[in-house]
Amino acid sequence: MKLGIQDFYPEELSHCFGCGRNNPNGHQLKSYWEGEFTKAKYTPKEFQTAIPGFVYGGLIASLIDCHGTGSAALAAYKNEHREPGSEPALRFVTASLNVDYVKPTPIGIELILVGKILEITNKKVITHIEVFANDVITAVGKVVAVKMPDSFIAK
Amino acid sequence: MKLGIQDFYPEELSHCFGCGRNNPNGHQLKSYWEGEFTKAKYTPKEFQTAIPGFVYGGLIASLIDCHGTGSAALAAYKNEHREPGSEPALRFVTASLNVDYVKPTPIGIELILVGKILEITNKKVITHIEVFANDVITAVGKVVAVKMPDSFIAK
Repeated sequence: MKLGIQDFYPEELSHCFGCGRNNPNGHQLKSYWEGEFTKAKYTPKEFQTAIPGFVYGGLIASLIDCHGTGSAALAAYKNEHREPGSEPALRFVTASLNVDYVKPTPIGIELILVGKILEITNKKVITHIEVFANDVITAVGKVVAVKMPDSFIAK
Repeated sequence: MKLGIQDFYPEELSHCFGCGRNNPNGHQLKSYWEGEFTKAKYTPKEFQTAIPGFVYGGLIASLIDCHGTGSAALAAYKNEHREPGSEPALRFVTASLNVDYVKPTPIGIELILVGKILEITNKKVITHIEVFANDVITAVGKVVAVKMPDSFIAK
């Protein structure tokens, strides 16, 4: 499996339910570059349903959220011409999340998330994300991610 | 425990990971009226974390999503002067979801979601939702919920 930016997060910041490699209960999403776009994949489990046959919208929001912060970190390292894992670590949190549910997302297949960086500044990255099921876009999201403030580090 | 609108959903539409009483793996959120506002409560589990000490943003988005569709159903029954559970059943799905993360949400305490109905038409309900942790607002959301289209019923 391809390494994701999340594989380079510092140990103590890798417990996120959505994308932390140290969270055995979570989704363990991995975000990586594919050309100019960022990509992640996830196959929803049978119980992550909304109406039988379709994926739970909250899960889709979660995947977009985590792929958004992952894409932000990818973009920030690239912007600084640094390799993921080099110091200081870049880690982002979500300031705002918007999801439009274009059509029902069928369950039982792998979903592909494709991110496009819309804007990047020193403190903020905005990403547009499309969710594909069988090559059809079922949801579209926008994530505003900001560099993690110190207040987020639990004492 | 107070009954939620979700306790009146038809059996076949009660599998939602966020709020279905028939989903033993899910959050089983319950939305009910408290005066003019809708309310729901949830205590995040230790593994539903983002950064240690704080709640995972994707979970907050999920709770807002489900409380939004629950609030929509509550408002729609009220609008038709009918009791929840009376026929025909009213069930909503999310068309769009917006979440602003105002500040980190501490983990280990009960979160309170308070919804205010902003707009209601025959097909659509828009709800504003505030998430409280220890009486402090940590996230604010807007949910546009639409009456469930027939295409959502898996054949």
